[in-house]
Amino acid sequence: MHTTFTHASPADRVLCPALRERIMTADQAASLIQSGMTLGMSGFTPAGAPKAVPQALARRIEEQNAHGGQFRISLWTGASTSAELDGALAKVHGIERRLPYQSDPTVRKEINEGRMQYVDIHLSHVAQYVWFGFLGHLDVAVVEVAGILPDGRLIPSTSVGNNKTWLEQADKIILEVNSAQPAALEGMHDIYYGAAVPPLRKPIPMVHPYDRIGDPYLHCDLDKVIAVVPTQQRDRLAGFTAPDADSQRIAQHIIDFLQHEVKVGRLPPELLPLQSGVGNIANAVLAGLNHGPFEQLHAYTEVLQDGMLDMLESGKLATASTTSLALSPAAMERFLADIDRYRSRVILRPQEISNHPELIRRMGLISMNALIEADMYGNVNSTHVMGSSIMNGIGGSGDFARNAYLSIFMTPSMAKGGNISCIVPMVSHVDHTEHDVQVIVTEQGLADLRGLAPVQRARRIIAQCVHPDYRAEMTDYLERALRDAPGKHTPHLLEETYAWHQRYLKTGSMHAAAPVPRVRAA
Amino acid sequence: MHTTFTHASPADRVLCPALRERIMTADQAASLIQSGMTLGMSGFTPAGAPKAVPQALARRIEEQNAHGGQFRISLWTGASTSAELDGALAKVHGIERRLPYQSDPTVRKEINEGRMQYVDIHLSHVAQYVWFGFLGHLDVAVVEVAGILPDGRLIPSTSVGNNKTWLEQADKIILEVNSAQPAALEGMHDIYYGAAVPPLRKPIPMVHPYDRIGDPYLHCDLDKVIAVVPTQQRDRLAGFTAPDADSQRIAQHIIDFLQHEVKVGRLPPELLPLQSGVGNIANAVLAGLNHGPFEQLHAYTEVLQDGMLDMLESGKLATASTTSLALSPAAMERFLADIDRYRSRVILRPQEISNHPELIRRMGLISMNALIEADMYGNVNSTHVMGSSIMNGIGGSGDFARNAYLSIFMTPSMAKGGNISCIVPMVSHVDHTEHDVQVIVTEQGLADLRGLAPVQRARRIIAQCVHPDYRAEMTDYLERALRDAPGKHTPHLLEETYAWHQRYLKTGSMHAAAPVPRVRAA
Repeated sequence: MHTTFTHASPADRVLCPALRERIMTADQAASLIQSGMTLGMSGFTPAGAPKAVPQALARRIEEQNAHGGQFRISLWTGASTSAELDGALAKVHGIERRLPYQSDPTVRKEINEGRMQYVDIHLSHVAQYVWFGFLGHLDVAVVEVAGILPDGRLIPSTSVGNNKTWLEQADKIILEVNSAQPAALEGMHDIYYGAAVPPLRKPIPMVHPYDRIGDPYLHCDLDKVIAVVPTQQRDRLAGFTAPDADSQRIAQHIIDFLQHEVKVGRLPPELLPLQSGVGNIANAVLAGLNHGPFEQLHAYTEVLQDGMLDMLESGKLATASTTSLALSPAAMERFLADIDRYRSRVILRPQEISNHPELIRRMGLISMNALIEADMYGNVNSTHVMGSSIMNGIGGSGDFARNAYLSIFMTPSMAKGGNISCIVPMVSHVDHTEHDVQVIVTEQGLADLRGLAPVQRARRIIAQCVHPDYRAEMTDYLERALRDAPGKHTPHLLEETYAWHQRYLKTGSMHAAAPVPRVRAA
Repeated sequence: MHTTFTHASPADRVLCPALRERIMTADQAASLIQSGMTLGMSGFTPAGAPKAVPQALARRIEEQNAHGGQFRISLWTGASTSAELDGALAKVHGIERRLPYQSDPTVRKEINEGRMQYVDIHLSHVAQYVWFGFLGHLDVAVVEVAGILPDGRLIPSTSVGNNKTWLEQADKIILEVNSAQPAALEGMHDIYYGAAVPPLRKPIPMVHPYDRIGDPYLHCDLDKVIAVVPTQQRDRLAGFTAPDADSQRIAQHIIDFLQHEVKVGRLPPELLPLQSGVGNIANAVLAGLNHGPFEQLHAYTEVLQDGMLDMLESGKLATASTTSLALSPAAMERFLADIDRYRSRVILRPQEISNHPELIRRMGLISMNALIEADMYGNVNSTHVMGSSIMNGIGGSGDFARNAYLSIFMTPSMAKGGNISCIVPMVSHVDHTEHDVQVIVTEQGLADLRGLAPVQRARRIIAQCVHPDYRAEMTDYLERALRDAPGKHTPHLLEETYAWHQRYLKTGSMHAAAPVPRVRAA
């Protein structure tokens, strides 16, 4: 079923005659974008993000604004993107409003200095909100693809994200056709075309993570395509550092826990489909699973990172469903070397499917996500630093945590060389409530919170997860709250819930300056 | 299809010979319950809660503990129950652990004084957690039914709740057969028997709120039934006060908003299925809808209260799906007088179906729920008073708010005669995060938060929802936070986030003692 492309020029990936006529440079394409427009761009991590038009647009914005212009656009994507996209546009202060997720340092700075409006949305909600008309009008889609067939069908790139929605909802379309993306991706995608708006929705016909329910190609109205820009550049993704000792301990606690759950019959021996968040801890857990006791695993996740490729290679992981193939360059080489074997085992889907509550709940995922801070009652902050500053965003963590079979949150017990305790009396922002957090794990240990009332949760989290450096002070807070708070269900002393955060902001450390006072019996 | 019961004695509702042999008194049945057991009881509101065995059990507990015993049980239900169940057992300090919801003053006191462990769970999660083995072993089910057919099938009562799960998961079953419940309920229920545990789950085959996908009867293993207790007592539900002026204003804001959404094409003229929380504001909104412009509405909700019956009577509401028929005595009389007409229009379902994320999202509900407090950034507290004390619980509000098409939260702008502002700088407990709250409405106005960043949300909530008595002080807080907070995304001053709550706890009022200081430009 694979298309044969010649390699005479980058434009050879554009087999559709009508679209060949619309080939132009990135600068020409960017000149079609006007200030005030809303753009829907591809990209879920740097994977599959457009490589040329955003930078050309940044140049256009910089130039116009250098001459007194006020050129700004609104930017919607799948999730985070790349320095060439988010970074370039933020550097010229070109983004007015951003959603649904970001992780770029310049974007973060723009948001936290109050120059960019950031709307932090569950990743599964984005496409439907656009279809419902809740987020306003989409002017232009800028979508990277790996090739265009003669009839205009599009071979998706290394991520799918919201591309189907952008292509269908935008007035106009700019396609980047990236001939550095493997043509062999063809056939790996599964674009679900059964979505609808209520009251016309039907059940999504998926029961296994490896079910194919859609089409391998993206479709678009060719008349809407105003530009086709050939590019030739691989995704630039960072590699991973080898797991450190703390991450390895976290991984081991999780594996021990999963083994115990299998032993007592609460999980089948082959577990349930795995969802894993991004980052070094997640990769350490995957490395642990890759050397662990479980076989014939499946992944149903939003980002396929190096750790999962290792598991596909070893055979521990039978199949993986994702919306983003976010491999480091070295891992991508290994992936491509064996792509014909992986094509039947890896599926790339739209993010409203990879993150769909209906499917996550039906298939019963084991969800593992990182956090910024948790509190002793089990509330989780995934987004804010010290209550006010955004880090990245909630991403898909809410889609998974709320609907998973098992919802696990993991973090080192401390950050900033011990000056921050990642477990605090009360989180400074809540993204996952006490109702949605079943397991918290640090290098210290794992707290299974299922079926516990708040004070029981606090005692278990303090005993299992909090670093010894902070344990006495947190115990002291809990005991004094139990004694003095007006209610004993979730006892808090409102005048000092954020004392640790305030101390950090003031002194650079959450550590108490003076020795922790011992609580007297009430 | 209706069964004919004689009325010679209460036991005449028990047509199954094997079960007739197990008829006994409530005290005899209660004697089969031992200390330390976990009981799964029927009841979702007082509707369908057992009427006799809980009180007999309370007597047994009181007697045993008067002689030095430590008799306590764990209690699982559908949601809240009645004074005769929760109240009676709490009064004798007989409940060790309670889930998933309560609204009884004695239970609340036990929890907030630290004598009862309360686990506050999304109502759609309860049944599956029991099936997964996450909450421990269920010893005895105590379930009210309206009758038992000759072959042992059970006619469910006025609520379904978790009864299917209790009957299937418990070791032993005690049935209360309540001959005061209308025999004409037969045929109104729809018990879905297609549920499974992952990885065996299938799509739930429902696309309209009025689809029937199950069986009108509950089934159980007759060998597990250890007692059948005839009772004859109607559910005791409170009536509603006539909507006050504030509730009517809230209702009008919502109706205006829905009309606007229809006008701009974001809702169909017949809207989408309605979910309405419980209480006087909810009933006022339903009264408003009953005199409003919308026709041929459908409800997909967890509790059918008087306001919805009015709409069924007027024809504004075509059909209603619920897990609880929580009508006041007067409304129940009207319902029964016309029950043959309602049987095809009202469906009673298990709560894992009435509250299922898959179905709520698919059908695109308009969800309307009350709250305790919201904050200026759009986080909602549905459960806690001043951060530490439980009020009732999250109930189904999370199931609906997260998955609805439109998620509306409503509250008067002030409580306690103006001494509490229901909108605060930061909520003292989070049950619905900024990511899940689309609309907040008070009698002051309606804040549509869709697509807004945090500071934009704050400005809109302050302008539209906050009572003028608190508006200046909240604006002052926002402006100072924008000036002084380390990040401008969700600016907070951590040293005074709970100043209003602390003031209330100290003085009985959130009102500032001194005039609100004006902010100077930064």
